[in-house]
Amino acid sequence: MSIRMYDLAGADPAVRFSPYCWRIRMALAHKGLTVETIPWRFSDKSAIAVSGQGAVPVIRDGETVVHDSWAIAEYLDDRYVDRPALMDGAQGKALANFARHFSQTVFAPIAFKAVMLDIYNAIDAGDRDYFRQSREARVGKTLEAFAIGEDEARALLKPALAPLRALLQEQAFVNGDAPAFADYCLFGGFMWVRGVSRKQLLAEDDPVYAWRERMLDLFEGLARKAPAVGA
Amino acid sequence: MSIRMYDLAGADPAVRFSPYCWRIRMALAHKGLTVETIPWRFSDKSAIAVSGQGAVPVIRDGETVVHDSWAIAEYLDDRYVDRPALMDGAQGKALANFARHFSQTVFAPIAFKAVMLDIYNAIDAGDRDYFRQSREARVGKTLEAFAIGEDEARALLKPALAPLRALLQEQAFVNGDAPAFADYCLFGGFMWVRGVSRKQLLAEDDPVYAWRERMLDLFEGLARKAPAVGA
Repeated sequence: MSIRMYDLAGADPAVRFSPYCWRIRMALAHKGLTVETIPWRFSDKSAIAVSGQGAVPVIRDGETVVHDSWAIAEYLDDRYVDRPALMDGAQGKALANFARHFSQTVFAPIAFKAVMLDIYNAIDAGDRDYFRQSREARVGKTLEAFAIGEDEARALLKPALAPLRALLQEQAFVNGDAPAFADYCLFGGFMWVRGVSRKQLLAEDDPVYAWRERMLDLFEGLARKAPAVGA
Repeated sequence: MSIRMYDLAGADPAVRFSPYCWRIRMALAHKGLTVETIPWRFSDKSAIAVSGQGAVPVIRDGETVVHDSWAIAEYLDDRYVDRPALMDGAQGKALANFARHFSQTVFAPIAFKAVMLDIYNAIDAGDRDYFRQSREARVGKTLEAFAIGEDEARALLKPALAPLRALLQEQAFVNGDAPAFADYCLFGGFMWVRGVSRKQLLAEDDPVYAWRERMLDLFEGLARKAPAVGA
Protein backbone atom coordinates (compact mmCIF):
# COMPACT_ATOMS: atom_id res chain seq x y z
CA MET A 1 0.00 0.00 0.00
CA SER A 2 1.24 3.46 -0.85
CA ILE A 3 2.25 5.98 1.73
CA ARG A 4 -0.26 8.82 1.87
CA MET A 5 0.92 12.39 2.30
CA TYR A 6 -1.07 15.55 3.02
CA ASP A 7 0.42 18.12 0.65
CA LEU A 8 -0.24 21.86 0.67
CA ALA A 9 -2.17 22.84 -2.49
CA GLY A 10 -2.95 26.12 -4.18
CA ALA A 11 -6.25 27.34 -5.59
CA ASP A 12 -5.36 24.96 -8.42
CA PRO A 13 -5.21 21.71 -6.44
CA ALA A 14 -2.52 20.38 -8.79
CA VAL A 15 -0.11 23.11 -7.67
CA ARG A 16 1.84 21.93 -4.61
CA PHE A 17 4.16 24.55 -3.20
CA SER A 18 5.13 23.69 0.39
CA PRO A 19 8.93 23.60 0.72
CA TYR A 20 8.60 21.04 3.52
CA CYS A 21 6.29 18.79 1.50
CA TRP A 22 8.72 18.95 -1.43
CA ARG A 23 11.53 17.74 0.81
CA ILE A 24 9.44 14.65 1.45
CA ARG A 25 8.24 14.16 -2.13
CA MET A 26 11.89 14.01 -3.15
CA ALA A 27 12.81 11.88 -0.14
CA LEU A 28 10.10 9.32 -0.94
CA ALA A 29 11.30 9.10 -4.55
CA HIS A 30 14.88 8.70 -3.28
CA LYS A 31 13.73 5.74 -1.18
CA GLY A 32 11.84 4.29 -4.15
CA LEU A 33 8.54 4.54 -2.29
CA THR A 34 5.27 5.35 -4.01
CA VAL A 35 3.09 8.06 -2.53
CA GLU A 36 -0.50 9.13 -2.83
CA THR A 37 -0.67 12.85 -2.15
CA ILE A 38 -3.79 14.43 -0.74
CA PRO A 39 -4.24 18.12 -1.53
CA TRP A 40 -4.48 20.09 1.70
CA ARG A 41 -5.31 23.70 2.45
CA PHE A 42 -4.27 25.87 5.39
CA SER A 43 -7.88 25.78 6.57
CA ASP A 44 -8.09 21.95 6.65
CA LYS A 45 -6.81 21.59 10.20
CA SER A 46 -9.24 18.77 10.97
CA ALA A 47 -7.92 16.56 8.16
CA ILE A 48 -4.54 16.26 9.89
CA ALA A 49 -5.72 16.44 13.50
CA VAL A 50 -4.62 12.81 13.93
CA SER A 51 -1.02 14.10 13.82
CA GLY A 52 -1.64 16.23 16.88
CA GLN A 53 -0.69 19.50 15.20
CA GLY A 54 -1.70 21.70 12.28
CA ALA A 55 1.02 21.74 9.61
CA VAL A 56 1.99 19.59 6.64
CA PRO A 57 3.67 17.38 5.60
CA VAL A 58 1.90 14.61 7.44
CA ILE A 59 2.34 11.05 6.19
CA ARG A 60 0.40 7.91 6.93
CA ASP A 61 2.29 4.68 6.36
CA GLY A 62 -0.05 1.83 7.26
CA GLU A 63 -1.00 2.55 10.85
CA THR A 64 1.87 4.99 11.44
CA VAL A 65 1.31 8.75 11.24
CA VAL A 66 4.35 11.02 11.18
CA HIS A 67 4.53 14.80 10.83
CA ASP A 68 7.37 17.31 10.40
CA SER A 69 9.70 16.90 7.44
CA TRP A 70 12.76 16.18 9.58
CA ALA A 71 10.96 13.52 11.63
CA ILE A 72 9.57 11.98 8.44
CA ALA A 73 13.05 11.72 6.89
CA GLU A 74 14.37 10.02 10.03
CA TYR A 75 11.36 7.70 10.03
CA LEU A 76 11.92 6.75 6.40
CA ASP A 77 15.60 5.93 6.97
CA ASP A 78 14.77 3.89 10.09
CA ARG A 79 11.76 2.07 8.62
CA TYR A 80 13.25 1.44 5.16
CA VAL A 81 16.83 0.87 6.18
CA ASP A 82 17.65 -1.36 3.18
CA ARG A 83 16.78 1.39 0.70
CA PRO A 84 19.14 4.27 -0.23
CA ALA A 85 19.89 6.39 2.84
CA LEU A 86 18.67 9.96 3.01
CA MET A 87 21.17 10.68 5.80
CA ASP A 88 24.16 8.37 5.84
CA GLY A 89 25.26 8.25 9.48
CA ALA A 90 25.84 10.95 12.06
CA GLN A 91 27.80 13.28 9.77
CA GLY A 92 25.24 12.87 6.98
CA LYS A 93 22.52 13.84 9.43
CA ALA A 94 24.54 16.88 10.51
CA LEU A 95 24.95 17.91 6.87
CA ALA A 96 21.20 17.74 6.27
CA ASN A 97 20.60 19.72 9.45
CA PHE A 98 23.08 22.44 8.38
CA ALA A 99 21.50 22.52 4.90
CA ARG A 100 17.97 22.90 6.25
CA HIS A 101 19.02 25.68 8.61
CA PHE A 102 20.86 27.38 5.76
CA SER A 103 17.67 27.14 3.70
CA GLN A 104 15.52 28.48 6.50
CA THR A 105 17.76 31.27 7.79
CA VAL A 106 19.47 32.44 4.58
CA PHE A 107 17.38 31.49 1.53
CA ALA A 108 13.85 31.57 2.88
CA PRO A 109 13.78 35.08 4.41
CA ILE A 110 14.84 36.64 1.11
CA ALA A 111 12.72 34.37 -1.09
CA PHE A 112 9.70 34.91 1.14
CA LYS A 113 9.84 38.65 0.58
CA ALA A 114 10.00 38.06 -3.17
CA VAL A 115 7.10 35.61 -3.43
CA MET A 116 4.75 36.42 -0.57
CA LEU A 117 2.29 38.25 -2.82
CA ASP A 118 2.60 35.47 -5.39
CA ILE A 119 1.71 32.96 -2.67
CA TYR A 120 -1.28 35.09 -1.69
CA ASN A 121 -2.47 35.06 -5.29
CA ALA A 122 -1.84 31.34 -5.79
CA ILE A 123 -3.61 29.99 -2.74
CA ASP A 124 -7.24 29.10 -2.45
CA ALA A 125 -9.57 32.03 -1.78
CA GLY A 126 -10.57 30.38 1.50
CA ASP A 127 -6.93 30.44 2.68
CA ARG A 128 -6.18 34.06 1.88
CA ASP A 129 -7.44 35.75 5.05
CA TYR A 130 -5.55 33.20 7.19
CA PHE A 131 -2.38 33.68 5.15
CA ARG A 132 -2.51 37.48 5.19
CA GLN A 133 -3.29 37.75 8.89
CA SER A 134 -0.74 35.19 10.07
CA ARG A 135 2.08 36.46 7.84
CA GLU A 136 1.41 40.15 8.45
CA ALA A 137 1.46 39.47 12.20
CA ARG A 138 4.79 37.67 11.78
CA VAL A 139 6.52 40.40 9.74
CA GLY A 140 4.81 43.40 11.30
CA LYS A 141 3.86 44.95 7.94
CA THR A 142 1.31 44.51 5.20
CA LEU A 143 2.31 41.95 2.58
CA GLU A 144 2.49 44.79 0.06
CA ALA A 145 4.85 46.86 2.22
CA PHE A 146 7.10 43.88 2.94
CA ALA A 147 7.36 42.51 -0.61
CA ILE A 148 10.44 43.03 -2.78
CA GLY A 149 10.82 42.65 -6.54
CA GLU A 150 12.78 40.13 -8.55
CA ASP A 151 15.83 42.36 -9.07
CA GLU A 152 16.17 43.15 -5.38
CA ALA A 153 15.73 39.50 -4.43
CA ARG A 154 18.42 38.43 -6.89
CA ALA A 155 20.78 41.13 -5.59
CA LEU A 156 20.25 39.93 -2.00
CA LEU A 157 20.46 36.21 -2.78
CA LYS A 158 23.65 36.39 -4.82
CA PRO A 159 26.00 37.13 -1.89
CA ALA A 160 23.86 35.21 0.59
CA LEU A 161 24.24 31.97 -1.38
CA ALA A 162 28.05 32.28 -1.59
CA PRO A 163 28.82 29.19 0.54
CA LEU A 164 26.36 27.05 -1.40
CA ARG A 165 27.75 28.33 -4.69
CA ALA A 166 31.34 27.60 -3.64
CA LEU A 167 30.31 24.07 -2.66
CA LEU A 168 28.46 23.45 -5.93
CA GLN A 169 31.44 24.64 -7.94
CA GLU A 170 33.29 21.63 -6.53
CA GLN A 171 30.64 18.93 -6.36
CA ALA A 172 27.46 18.16 -8.28
CA PHE A 173 25.18 17.97 -5.27
CA VAL A 174 25.18 19.28 -1.71
CA ASN A 175 25.49 15.68 -0.56
CA GLY A 176 28.47 15.04 -2.86
CA ASP A 177 28.39 13.08 -6.12
CA ALA A 178 24.79 12.01 -5.57
CA PRO A 179 21.79 13.87 -4.12
CA ALA A 180 20.26 13.03 -0.74
CA PHE A 181 18.35 14.77 2.03
CA ALA A 182 20.59 17.86 2.35
CA ASP A 183 19.84 18.56 -1.31
CA TYR A 184 16.11 18.00 -0.84
CA CYS A 185 16.03 20.39 2.14
CA LEU A 186 17.52 23.17 0.05
CA PHE A 187 15.63 22.29 -3.13
CA GLY A 188 12.30 22.43 -1.30
CA GLY A 189 12.79 26.18 -1.01
CA PHE A 190 13.26 26.53 -4.73
CA MET A 191 10.13 24.45 -5.42
CA TRP A 192 8.18 26.76 -3.11
CA VAL A 193 9.22 29.71 -5.29
CA ARG A 194 8.56 27.80 -8.53
CA GLY A 195 5.14 26.66 -7.40
CA VAL A 196 3.69 30.11 -6.97
CA SER A 197 5.87 32.60 -8.84
CA ARG A 198 7.29 33.43 -12.25
CA LYS A 199 10.19 35.22 -10.58
CA GLN A 200 13.56 33.71 -11.37
CA LEU A 201 15.78 34.32 -8.35
CA LEU A 202 19.02 32.92 -9.82
CA ALA A 203 21.15 34.04 -12.76
CA GLU A 204 21.48 31.35 -15.42
CA ASP A 205 25.27 31.32 -15.09
CA ASP A 206 25.08 30.65 -11.32
CA PRO A 207 26.30 27.17 -10.28
CA VAL A 208 23.27 27.10 -7.98
CA TYR A 209 21.04 27.47 -11.07
CA ALA A 210 22.76 24.48 -12.70
CA TRP A 211 22.28 22.44 -9.52
CA ARG A 212 18.59 23.40 -9.46
CA GLU A 213 18.30 22.16 -13.04
CA ARG A 214 19.85 18.83 -12.03
CA MET A 215 17.42 18.59 -9.13
CA LEU A 216 14.45 19.30 -11.41
CA ASP A 217 15.57 16.37 -13.60
CA LEU A 218 15.86 13.77 -10.81
CA PHE A 219 13.48 10.80 -10.67
CA GLU A 220 12.42 11.21 -14.30
CA GLY A 221 11.69 14.88 -13.87
CA LEU A 222 9.42 14.52 -10.84
CA ALA A 223 9.83 18.17 -9.85
CA ARG A 224 10.05 19.60 -13.36
CA LYS A 225 6.80 17.92 -14.40
CA ALA A 226 4.93 19.20 -11.35
CA PRO A 227 2.29 21.82 -12.18
CA ALA A 228 3.57 25.24 -11.14
CA VAL A 229 3.13 28.91 -11.82
CA GLY A 230 6.88 29.30 -12.47
CA ALA A 231 9.47 27.28 -14.36
CA MET B 1 58.34 9.36 14.25
CA SER B 2 56.18 12.43 14.64
CA ILE B 3 54.57 14.16 11.74
CA ARG B 4 56.20 17.55 11.16
CA MET B 5 54.07 20.56 10.23
CA TYR B 6 55.13 23.98 9.02
CA ASP B 7 52.94 26.33 11.02
CA LEU B 8 52.52 30.09 10.46
CA ALA B 9 54.03 32.00 13.40
CA GLY B 10 53.83 35.58 14.58
CA ALA B 11 56.63 37.86 15.74
CA ASP B 12 56.38 35.77 18.89
CA PRO B 13 57.18 32.35 17.41
CA ALA B 14 54.90 30.68 19.98
CA VAL B 15 51.85 32.46 18.52
CA ARG B 16 50.39 30.35 15.71
CA PHE B 17 47.46 31.99 13.96
CA SER B 18 46.84 30.38 10.57
CA PRO B 19 43.23 29.18 10.32
CA TYR B 20 44.32 26.45 7.91
CA CYS B 21 47.12 25.25 10.20
CA TRP B 22 44.67 25.15 13.12
CA ARG B 23 42.36 22.89 11.12
CA ILE B 24 45.25 20.45 10.90
CA ARG B 25 46.46 20.84 14.49
CA MET B 26 42.98 19.82 15.59
CA ALA B 27 42.75 17.10 12.93
CA LEU B 28 46.05 15.55 14.05
CA ALA B 29 44.87 15.54 17.67
CA HIS B 30 41.58 13.97 16.54
CA LYS B 31 43.54 11.17 14.88
CA GLY B 32 45.70 10.76 17.99
CA LEU B 33 48.85 11.63 16.06
CA THR B 34 51.73 13.56 17.57
CA VAL B 35 53.10 16.51 15.67
CA GLU B 36 56.23 18.58 15.76
CA THR B 37 55.39 22.05 14.53
CA ILE B 38 57.98 24.22 12.86
CA PRO B 39 57.35 27.96 13.10
CA TRP B 40 57.12 29.42 9.62
CA ARG B 41 56.93 32.99 8.32
CA PHE B 42 55.38 34.31 5.12
CA SER B 43 58.91 35.07 3.89
CA ASP B 44 60.18 31.49 4.37
CA LYS B 45 59.12 30.27 0.94
CA SER B 46 62.27 28.17 0.54
CA ALA B 47 61.53 26.10 3.66
CA ILE B 48 58.40 24.63 2.05
CA ALA B 49 59.59 24.63 -1.58
CA VAL B 50 59.55 20.82 -1.46
CA SER B 51 55.73 21.04 -1.46
CA GLY B 52 55.79 22.80 -4.83
CA GLN B 53 53.94 25.88 -3.59
CA GLY B 54 54.23 28.67 -1.03
CA ALA B 55 51.55 28.34 1.66
CA VAL B 56 51.15 26.44 4.91
CA PRO B 57 50.13 24.03 6.30
CA VAL B 58 52.63 21.63 4.85
CA ILE B 59 53.17 18.32 6.60
CA ARG B 60 55.93 15.78 6.27
CA ASP B 61 55.00 12.27 7.34
CA GLY B 62 58.05 10.08 6.83
CA GLU B 63 58.86 10.50 3.15
CA THR B 64 55.44 11.93 2.26
CA VAL B 65 54.92 15.70 1.91
CA VAL B 66 51.35 17.02 1.70
CA HIS B 67 50.14 20.61 1.50
CA ASP B 68 46.69 22.26 1.62
CA SER B 69 44.50 21.65 4.67
CA TRP B 70 41.81 19.80 2.70
CA ALA B 71 44.32 17.49 1.03
CA ILE B 72 46.02 16.87 4.38
CA ALA B 73 42.71 15.88 6.01
CA GLU B 74 41.98 13.45 3.16
CA TYR B 75 45.52 12.09 3.44
CA LEU B 76 45.17 11.54 7.20
CA ASP B 77 41.88 9.66 6.81
CA ASP B 78 43.32 7.51 4.01
CA ARG B 79 46.67 6.83 5.66
CA TYR B 80 45.34 6.32 9.20
CA VAL B 81 42.08 4.62 8.34
CA ASP B 82 41.86 2.71 11.65
CA ARG B 83 41.85 5.93 13.69
CA PRO B 84 38.78 8.14 14.24
CA ALA B 85 37.54 9.51 10.91
CA LEU B 86 37.72 13.22 10.19
CA MET B 87 35.18 12.79 7.40
CA ASP B 88 32.94 9.77 7.73
CA GLY B 89 32.01 8.82 4.16
CA ALA B 90 30.73 10.86 1.25
CA GLN B 91 28.17 12.85 3.23
CA GLY B 92 30.69 13.58 5.98
CA LYS B 93 33.08 14.90 3.36
CA ALA B 94 30.31 17.06 1.90
CA LEU B 95 29.56 18.46 5.35
CA ALA B 96 33.20 19.43 5.90
CA ASN B 97 33.29 21.02 2.46
CA PHE B 98 30.14 23.04 3.17
CA ALA B 99 31.54 24.08 6.57
CA ARG B 100 34.87 25.23 5.13
CA HIS B 101 33.13 27.22 2.41
CA PHE B 102 30.84 28.74 5.02
CA SER B 103 33.92 29.70 7.03
CA GLN B 104 35.69 31.17 4.02
CA THR B 105 32.79 33.01 2.39
CA VAL B 106 30.75 34.10 5.43
CA PHE B 107 32.95 34.22 8.55
CA ALA B 108 36.36 35.09 7.13
CA PRO B 109 35.48 38.21 5.10
CA ILE B 110 33.96 39.88 8.16
CA ALA B 111 36.58 38.62 10.62
CA PHE B 112 39.38 39.66 8.27
CA LYS B 113 38.18 43.26 8.31
CA ALA B 114 38.12 43.19 12.10
CA VAL B 115 41.57 41.69 12.66
CA MET B 116 43.68 42.70 9.66
CA LEU B 117 45.49 45.43 11.58
CA ASP B 118 45.90 43.09 14.54
CA ILE B 119 47.50 40.57 12.19
CA TYR B 120 49.80 43.27 10.87
CA ASN B 121 50.87 44.10 14.39
CA ALA B 122 51.29 40.45 15.45
CA ILE B 123 53.43 39.22 12.59
CA ASP B 124 57.19 39.34 12.37
CA ALA B 125 58.61 42.68 11.24
CA GLY B 126 60.10 40.93 8.21
CA ASP B 127 56.63 39.80 7.10
CA ARG B 128 54.88 43.16 7.37
CA ASP B 129 55.69 44.64 3.98
CA TYR B 130 54.64 41.41 2.28
CA PHE B 131 51.41 41.26 4.28
CA ARG B 132 50.48 44.90 3.69
CA GLN B 133 51.24 44.86 -0.03
CA SER B 134 49.53 41.53 -0.79
CA ARG B 135 46.42 42.28 1.29
CA GLU B 136 46.04 45.89 0.14
CA ALA B 137 46.29 44.69 -3.47
CA ARG B 138 43.58 42.12 -2.74
CA VAL B 139 41.10 44.52 -1.10
CA GLY B 140 41.96 47.63 -3.10
CA LYS B 141 42.36 49.85 -0.01
CA THR B 142 44.87 50.52 2.71
CA LEU B 143 44.54 48.21 5.70
CA GLU B 144 43.55 51.21 7.79
CA ALA B 145 40.74 52.20 5.40
CA PHE B 146 39.43 48.63 5.16
CA ALA B 147 39.49 47.78 8.87
CA ILE B 148 36.33 47.73 11.00
CA GLY B 149 35.99 47.81 14.78
CA GLU B 150 34.75 45.16 17.17
CA ASP B 151 31.22 46.51 17.42
CA GLU B 152 30.74 46.64 13.66
CA ALA B 153 32.19 43.15 13.24
CA ARG B 154 29.84 41.75 15.88
CA ALA B 155 26.87 43.46 14.25
CA LEU B 156 27.79 41.96 10.87
CA LEU B 157 28.60 38.49 12.19
CA LYS B 158 25.45 38.07 14.23
CA PRO B 159 23.04 37.69 11.28
CA ALA B 160 25.69 36.10 9.06
CA LEU B 161 26.18 33.20 11.48
CA ALA B 162 22.43 32.47 11.73
CA PRO B 163 22.58 29.00 10.07
CA LEU B 164 25.51 27.93 12.25
CA ARG B 165 23.75 29.25 15.36
CA ALA B 166 20.53 27.40 14.50
CA LEU B 167 22.51 24.20 14.02
CA LEU B 168 24.38 24.59 17.30
CA GLN B 169 21.15 25.19 19.18
CA GLU B 170 20.24 21.61 18.25
CA GLN B 171 23.53 19.75 18.42
CA ALA B 172 26.76 20.19 20.39
CA PHE B 173 29.07 20.19 17.37
CA VAL B 174 28.79 20.93 13.67
CA ASN B 175 29.51 17.25 13.03
CA GLY B 176 26.77 16.16 15.48
CA ASP B 177 27.32 14.79 18.98
CA ALA B 178 31.10 14.69 18.52
CA PRO B 179 33.47 17.06 16.74
CA ALA B 180 35.25 16.22 13.50
CA PHE B 181 36.67 18.00 10.48
CA ALA B 182 33.68 20.26 9.76
CA ASP B 183 34.11 21.67 13.27
CA TYR B 184 37.87 22.10 12.80
CA CYS B 185 37.34 23.96 9.51
CA LEU B 186 35.10 26.49 11.22
CA PHE B 187 37.08 26.64 14.44
CA GLY B 188 40.29 27.44 12.55
CA GLY B 189 38.79 30.81 11.73
CA PHE B 190 38.15 31.56 15.37
CA MET B 191 41.71 30.54 16.30
CA TRP B 192 42.98 32.95 13.64
CA VAL B 193 41.14 35.78 15.40
CA ARG B 194 42.22 34.62 18.85
CA GLY B 195 45.86 34.31 17.84
CA VAL B 196 46.29 37.94 16.89
CA SER B 197 43.46 39.97 18.42
CA ARG B 198 41.81 40.85 21.70
CA LYS B 199 38.55 41.51 19.83
CA GLN B 200 35.72 39.25 20.89
CA LEU B 201 33.48 38.77 17.87
CA LEU B 202 30.73 36.77 19.60
CA ALA B 203 28.32 37.66 22.37
CA GLU B 204 28.69 35.41 25.41
CA ASP B 205 25.07 34.27 25.16
CA ASP B 206 25.51 33.15 21.53
CA PRO B 207 25.33 29.35 21.04
CA VAL B 208 28.31 29.79 18.70
CA TYR B 209 30.27 31.21 21.66
CA ALA B 210 29.42 28.12 23.74
CA TRP B 211 30.52 25.86 20.87
CA ARG B 212 33.81 27.79 20.61
CA GLU B 213 34.34 27.22 24.33
CA ARG B 214 33.79 23.48 23.83
CA MET B 215 36.27 23.50 20.96
CA LEU B 216 38.87 25.32 23.05
CA ASP B 217 38.56 22.55 25.66
CA LEU B 218 39.07 19.60 23.28
CA PHE B 219 42.17 17.42 23.54
CA GLU B 220 43.00 18.62 27.05
CA GLY B 221 42.68 22.25 26.06
CA LEU B 222 45.05 22.10 23.07
CA ALA B 223 43.65 25.31 21.57
CA ARG B 224 42.96 27.12 24.85
CA LYS B 225 46.53 26.57 26.04
CA ALA B 226 48.04 27.86 22.82
CA PRO B 227 49.82 31.21 23.22
CA ALA B 228 47.66 33.95 21.72
CA VAL B 229 47.06 37.67 21.85
CA GLY B 230 43.33 37.08 22.51
CA ALA B 231 41.38 34.72 24.73
